[in-house]
Amino acid sequence: MDFALQFRVQDLNARYAQAIDNNRLEAWPDFFVEQGRYRITTAENVERGLPLGIIHATSRAMLRDRVRSLRDANVYEAQRYRHIVGVPLIERGDGAIVRAQSNFLVARIMHTGETVLFATGRYQDQIVLDDGKGEMRFAERIVILDSRLIDTLLAIPL
Amino acid sequence: MDFALQFRVQDLNARYAQAIDNNRLEAWPDFFVEQGRYRITTAENVERGLPLGIIHATSRAMLRDRVRSLRDANVYEAQRYRHIVGVPLIERGDGAIVRAQSNFLVARIMHTGETVLFATGRYQDQIVLDDGKGEMRFAERIVILDSRLIDTLLAIPL
Amino acid sequence: MDFALQFRVQDLNARYAQAIDNNRLEAWPDFFVEQGRYRITTAENVERGLPLGIIHATSRAMLRDRVRSLRDANVYEAQRYRHIVGVPLIERGDGAIVRAQSNFLVARIMHTGETVLFATGRYQDQIVLDDGKGEMRFAERIVILDSRLIDTLLAIPL
Repeated sequence: MDFALQFRVQDLNARYAQAIDNNRLEAWPDFFVEQGRYRITTAENVERGLPLGIIHATSRAMLRDRVRSLRDANVYEAQRYRHIVGVPLIERGDGAIVRAQSNFLVARIMHTGETVLFATGRYQDQIVLDDGKGEMRFAERIVILDSRLIDTLLAIPL
Repeated sequence: MDFALQFRVQDLNARYAQAIDNNRLEAWPDFFVEQGRYRITTAENVERGLPLGIIHATSRAMLRDRVRSLRDANVYEAQRYRHIVGVPLIERGDGAIVRAQSNFLVARIMHTGETVLFATGRYQDQIVLDDGKGEMRFAERIVILDSRLIDTLLAIPL
Repeated sequence: MDFALQFRVQDLNARYAQAIDNNRLEAWPDFFVEQGRYRITTAENVERGLPLGIIHATSRAMLRDRVRSLRDANVYEAQRYRHIVGVPLIERGDGAIVRAQSNFLVARIMHTGETVLFATGRYQDQIVLDDGKGEMRFAERIVILDSRLIDTLLAIPL
């Protein structure tokens, strides 16, 4: 095992989660490379080989648009999220990219204070070790949800 | 602290969880040594010194039987699980065995999509560092549930 | 990244959680330095700059008093807690103190066996690397809850 790599991926996951949970949504696209892919799908879809997800973005610019929409709609202000992310399982491919898979659980806290178990699933990631500036970023993050009940507010980053 | 050991135990926990959560049940017995013990009990039973658990297996063969029963009954297909496992606390005994204790939480996702907080508790493990083939495996995993409400479907691995 | 430091903080969080979850409340004050500060507040209060928390202790002695009250009132015996703590994000300040931030989720298990998602939020910590006896302890732990619904039983450590 490459401990340093394991640590860096855990740290990336923790920073990603805290940016969303602490309402610093504008920082979210920067966790991806410029042509980064972000997709939300369900385990059922993955098992059936259905390629389409609920959300599919193929660049940082698209993620920035999404953040702007969320801010305009004030969707995000009415609730909070809290991510708990498990230890990543890492496969090293060629030198530049690693694949990682991590369990996650997200709680949603409504403005009334009510807290619910909002989503569970796994992240399936391709991570660029160095974007040229010494930073680790997602080339691809696929969010595979366990449940097929899709909330209409799912536009919010997971 | 022995960082390498800590890492390897975390990795074992993560692989164990993902095998179950990703419906690769047949891989589950292989996380144990041939005469591995697997037990599910409750915190209340442990505190009262009651030795008997809800489930008690004393070999990999028994675990394989259980997986076969679950597949035959199609119990597993109607639901999904998602484990989140905390950082293990490790005590090194003699050279061959380590003791580890980790908090866990398991969500259950029904085929309707409904997600519930299914079980919480702690793992109390004895881990063999090397099974002779360089692999780390459980000599014993005791699953200590916080709740004494026992679901009849508990036959599914935790 | 300082891996050894990261590990030690994770370990501190895990031991803290297990002391509470395994009903070893009397060990809880010892995770703090003698003049350690412990505060529970809400994200809303923090964002509005309101300094006051729900609970505010400024010494280990105050924490010991709290544990005694909890034991006298038998509050703790009627329920269990289970903490899941995320990977800490660490900032190293001067040599003696580190700042850490970690997501957490706490489940509450009532004596009836019912399990609920009790609290989510983040820990914001100042940690003394060495208390003079080679131990790491909290100089300050601020528990920032996501929800503003405050349970009257919140006197129990988080």
